[in-house]
Amino acid sequence: MKVEKIVLNEKRNVTLTAYTQSTEEFRHIKKRPAILILPGGGYQMCSDKEADPVAFPYLQAGYQAFILRYSVGVDSVWPNPLDDYDQAIKCMKERAEEWHVLTDKIVVIGFSAGGHLAACAATMSKYRPYAAILGYPVIEGDCASIYQKTAPDVIAAVDENTCPCFVFATRTDNVVSIKNTIHFLDALEKNDILFESHIYSHGAHGFSICNSSVEVDPEEFCNRVPHWVADSMEWLKDIMGDFGNNEFLNPRFFPYINGNKEDVLNIDCTLAYLFSDSEAMKILDPILKQGENQQKQAANVDEKFMLQTMKLMTLRHMLSVISMPKNVIKQLDEQLRKIPNKRMKKG
Amino acid sequence: MKVEKIVLNEKRNVTLTAYTQSTEEFRHIKKRPAILILPGGGYQMCSDKEADPVAFPYLQAGYQAFILRYSVGVDSVWPNPLDDYDQAIKCMKERAEEWHVLTDKIVVIGFSAGGHLAACAATMSKYRPYAAILGYPVIEGDCASIYQKTAPDVIAAVDENTCPCFVFATRTDNVVSIKNTIHFLDALEKNDILFESHIYSHGAHGFSICNSSVEVDPEEFCNRVPHWVADSMEWLKDIMGDFGNNEFLNPRFFPYINGNKEDVLNIDCTLAYLFSDSEAMKILDPILKQGENQQKQAANVDEKFMLQTMKLMTLRHMLSVISMPKNVIKQLDEQLRKIPNKRMKKG
Amino acid sequence: MKVEKIVLNEKRNVTLTAYTQSTEEFRHIKKRPAILILPGGGYQMCSDKEADPVAFPYLQAGYQAFILRYSVGVDSVWPNPLDDYDQAIKCMKERAEEWHVLTDKIVVIGFSAGGHLAACAATMSKYRPYAAILGYPVIEGDCASIYQKTAPDVIAAVDENTCPCFVFATRTDNVVSIKNTIHFLDALEKNDILFESHIYSHGAHGFSICNSSVEVDPEEFCNRVPHWVADSMEWLKDIMGDFGNNEFLNPRFFPYINGNKEDVLNIDCTLAYLFSDSEAMKILDPILKQGENQQKQAANVDEKFMLQTMKLMTLRHMLSVISMPKNVIKQLDEQLRKIPNKRMKKG
Amino acid sequence: MKVEKIVLNEKRNVTLTAYTQSTEEFRHIKKRPAILILPGGGYQMCSDKEADPVAFPYLQAGYQAFILRYSVGVDSVWPNPLDDYDQAIKCMKERAEEWHVLTDKIVVIGFSAGGHLAACAATMSKYRPYAAILGYPVIEGDCASIYQKTAPDVIAAVDENTCPCFVFATRTDNVVSIKNTIHFLDALEKNDILFESHIYSHGAHGFSICNSSVEVDPEEFCNRVPHWVADSMEWLKDIMGDFGNNEFLNPRFFPYINGNKEDVLNIDCTLAYLFSDSEAMKILDPILKQGENQQKQAANVDEKFMLQTMKLMTLRHMLSVISMPKNVIKQLDEQLRKIPNKRMKKG
Repeated sequence: MKVEKIVLNEKRNVTLTAYTQSTEEFRHIKKRPAILILPGGGYQMCSDKEADPVAFPYLQAGYQAFILRYSVGVDSVWPNPLDDYDQAIKCMKERAEEWHVLTDKIVVIGFSAGGHLAACAATMSKYRPYAAILGYPVIEGDCASIYQKTAPDVIAAVDENTCPCFVFATRTDNVVSIKNTIHFLDALEKNDILFESHIYSHGAHGFSICNSSVEVDPEEFCNRVPHWVADSMEWLKDIMGDFGNNEFLNPRFFPYINGNKEDVLNIDCTLAYLFSDSEAMKILDPILKQGENQQKQAANVDEKFMLQTMKLMTLRHMLSVISMPKNVIKQLDEQLRKIPNKRMKKG
Repeated sequence: MKVEKIVLNEKRNVTLTAYTQSTEEFRHIKKRPAILILPGGGYQMCSDKEADPVAFPYLQAGYQAFILRYSVGVDSVWPNPLDDYDQAIKCMKERAEEWHVLTDKIVVIGFSAGGHLAACAATMSKYRPYAAILGYPVIEGDCASIYQKTAPDVIAAVDENTCPCFVFATRTDNVVSIKNTIHFLDALEKNDILFESHIYSHGAHGFSICNSSVEVDPEEFCNRVPHWVADSMEWLKDIMGDFGNNEFLNPRFFPYINGNKEDVLNIDCTLAYLFSDSEAMKILDPILKQGENQQKQAANVDEKFMLQTMKLMTLRHMLSVISMPKNVIKQLDEQLRKIPNKRMKKG
Repeated sequence: MKVEKIVLNEKRNVTLTAYTQSTEEFRHIKKRPAILILPGGGYQMCSDKEADPVAFPYLQAGYQAFILRYSVGVDSVWPNPLDDYDQAIKCMKERAEEWHVLTDKIVVIGFSAGGHLAACAATMSKYRPYAAILGYPVIEGDCASIYQKTAPDVIAAVDENTCPCFVFATRTDNVVSIKNTIHFLDALEKNDILFESHIYSHGAHGFSICNSSVEVDPEEFCNRVPHWVADSMEWLKDIMGDFGNNEFLNPRFFPYINGNKEDVLNIDCTLAYLFSDSEAMKILDPILKQGENQQKQAANVDEKFMLQTMKLMTLRHMLSVISMPKNVIKQLDEQLRKIPNKRMKKG
Repeated sequence: MKVEKIVLNEKRNVTLTAYTQSTEEFRHIKKRPAILILPGGGYQMCSDKEADPVAFPYLQAGYQAFILRYSVGVDSVWPNPLDDYDQAIKCMKERAEEWHVLTDKIVVIGFSAGGHLAACAATMSKYRPYAAILGYPVIEGDCASIYQKTAPDVIAAVDENTCPCFVFATRTDNVVSIKNTIHFLDALEKNDILFESHIYSHGAHGFSICNSSVEVDPEEFCNRVPHWVADSMEWLKDIMGDFGNNEFLNPRFFPYINGNKEDVLNIDCTLAYLFSDSEAMKILDPILKQGENQQKQAANVDEKFMLQTMKLMTLRHMLSVISMPKNVIKQLDEQLRKIPNKRMKKG
């Protein structure tokens, strides 16, 4: 592994530290996904405890890891920190060949005030990350302004182009209220953005990877807290893919809440979405009727329920509920994928 | 283990199934905590897949397990299901000696519509559980009324007497929107109630313990989903205690978000709470001054930050931040515990 | 779940307790694998702590669970306990329809002296289990005879028909020496039997599932000890299969150390085994030559190494080492599977 | 983190790569334990896949990590590789201040042929490690000589001064037979050395940390294999200690199988060991009598059993079996610890 420290902005003391792994002895791994780490520190400092210790598990998973020490103190007046972020990603993309980086698989992770910056990257940046991981983040304007008066409210910026987010925090955090996380999840839900979230019961603010190496007192944290590390990496595999035997594999799941955001129609679209497409209906009409009837009979449900169901339920899920054979499901998907998704709203 | 099925209400077909473990060969375990399981089924049925499979892990952890098959269909008009719950708990308390149940350690778990009922138990019941575990719960009035027109909105019922809650669900649930969970957490936060929450990225509604034994298709769920089982049991140990060598041990953590709800003052009270008690201030004044100064200098923080900090931060956390030796912390706690908590609002 | 207690031998006080799960609400799960539990107790008793607490996790995984309280005390003179085992299995097979048991998927688990009995079942019984799980087992004759003078040495009985074994124990067990486990593994290895083994560093004898519900003191055990429970169930899935969407799925892996014990030749046979079959050689000659050369060049290895390699290495592994495409591997397997395995020695 | 590459032997191309973490921002962590990594490669090469990917999890746990690329090919004639090891440790000790290394907490880990070298370090080196972790190691002379004709047999070298060992491998390893591991455990047992061992059912040789980042095919490995990483680190905490709030904490457990190897007598000594010390007997006589009687009655055991028991059972375990209160146990330990252990044989 090589270590390199690049000065991005000498005046504001902004640096990018690159930990990059070689690919020489590897048969198939020629390029790697990358993670950009934004340590916390109340926009007054960048904490070492949320830098290297966070890089190691991602390096172990095969990532290239980068630590951005962004503008703090008087230099953290907005939009300096976000500009630092964009500059860091730009640098990573420009040197992607040399650093063996998959430029379409760059993820950002931030903690506390760094979590605020990561959430801004997810919603307002020029170079959007594939996904964002936010640890006990500062989100709301009134909380952000405590640390940096000019820092923006993130809630207001969440829209349909926000990237998927993994958010973790502790309920008893007594520095940054858990309200920040809850209201952020609410905004993601309202905008149909995919997320995963873990709010652990007990533990104070600023626990980083929550092991003895970052000097947290294990007596003050419930045992689940350190799980976010492995869980976040598994989640990234789920939505971004993983190293395979010959190539970087496709992910198991969409980075969306359903198939409505794909380029073509598919069986992971919601029923309501497919219903309003006449071409899709030609294919689906007989099957949907069958499913509807079975469901109605089975659950003795009323019209209101059926409308609710159609709005949210995907075709795949309905077919699974009525025990449709897997090969029929596959066939249907292939047929649907020939129809362009005209209403697609992807960023 | 013995199995017993009690008919609680013959007309409405309400039954309580008791799985109770003996205590004969055990040296210290004479009584056990209990879990009351409320299966889901849209208030139209009580699903077997959310009954026995849920009982087993709790039996393994040493609990006595009870399954309530509550009023469904036309019988589920409100408040029948909640009455069933109260009747079940009453029965468990009355037969506690015979069933070796610790009557102050009864927990409720519910799924989907059963999660709605469990949330009602946590907020509106006569016999409150020690804690409630809610799986992909129906919470909001508009959602509840789809399944049972008369079912109440839970959000409105959350208050300072609501018990601690463990809530899990999947983001992509397309039957009961994740909104239900998010808005419930928001209500818990507003009322200072302790909780833990896990929202897993991918997976459909109704997964129960999410293993192959309940016929879920593992391809449709991200791997973290089954973690709720072990995590919920660990959480219960954290806040309710565990079997020890000679007795049932005290929990590691309060079932509250801080010490403000204890009978006496203590170092887990918030700074603001202690500040407004003149007796406490006599003890704390010199120490708090020291902490304040260190914090101010360290983080170069302003007045607004300090006020925010004092409102949320506990004395223990502040003392930990300023590296106060553990024996001094212990001494302080003992001194504070001599002062009654006059403003205590515990239910 | 139903509980039933059958008296297998009134005089010797031998009973079989059956915990059987219904299959009514299930779409595909009509029959289930079964586990027969043999508690320990030095052939003087059958401990309750190694009975119900062991049944629960297997019930949770979808098994039917049976507890055999075999002959103890003066009645444990050999071969009484082994006869009890055979009678129990016979009973389970006879009532398989009623109890929804897959008769070819019956597993035995035993602890301490019950582990001795389970090892006897694996090596000497009339009705062999599919697999055996042995917890801190008594194995060697000199150890077994401490508890029951007439109890046989298991080492001597291990042969090529012994079933796959999962063996766990603690290094510091000061009642049954870890020698028993090590020498058993050695015998399994000598007879080419598949096994998995976990020897945890610290912990006393008799820990059962090693959680607080069986009154073990967690301070005396290293944290890995309870892992045997989940690990053993995962291992059973690996070699015996699992519930799928429509049927009980085939296992991921053979219950053998390679493919030499299958009815037909296949790519999981060892190179040496295939080399000595003229029909196989017609198919493999060109490919093997290629692999050999690559390996020789790559590792600069000598003749002795190559001979060693061929004896142990499977064709699949060699093809993987030389990066053979997966479709070619699949084709080869299909071709080989047309050739009967004339030397097959399966029990 | 800093990276430094030191040439230990230019002629033989031996290098030591040091990944060292700073201690600046840390309040209490001033020095760190260290791990020395010995990659595998049949004494023909040092594989990159068993180098950096192994360093990362130990760095994450707070260790300083060092990779030794030892003599290979013609240079691997004995004792060159072992000399390289000793030179590496010497270098780490000499620069311990600069590298923030706790010189009495240096651990070695090796894979395959590197596992052979690590086992030699554990048994034959000048600078013994605190503990050794061996992955699918080459151990026996006949196996070692395949790779390097002059490489010694490790079995013969195991004695009472061998350090504690953590050994993992797969049953179906078809390059280095599992015999190597089993016979090594047997030798450790014979010499009363502490160990932990995990032999996973299915998987080929050379899997390193067994995740997608080292290009192993997950389909060929059972899911437990990657557990060795976390398990080995937990084991090291158990026997070597961990970072605490103010200092490096004492371990939970001895690095021995009982207390007989401590400088003073203690309650973790075996009964037989204490019985043969007249000073200890003055303290213990009344208590031991009580325990003996209870045990005899309880289990209806004979003389042979009691003698066996006394030889292996520790005083602590016996006191726990007879439910002795914890404060009495503590008192006894204090009393015993005043008596020097005259027969102590520690290396």
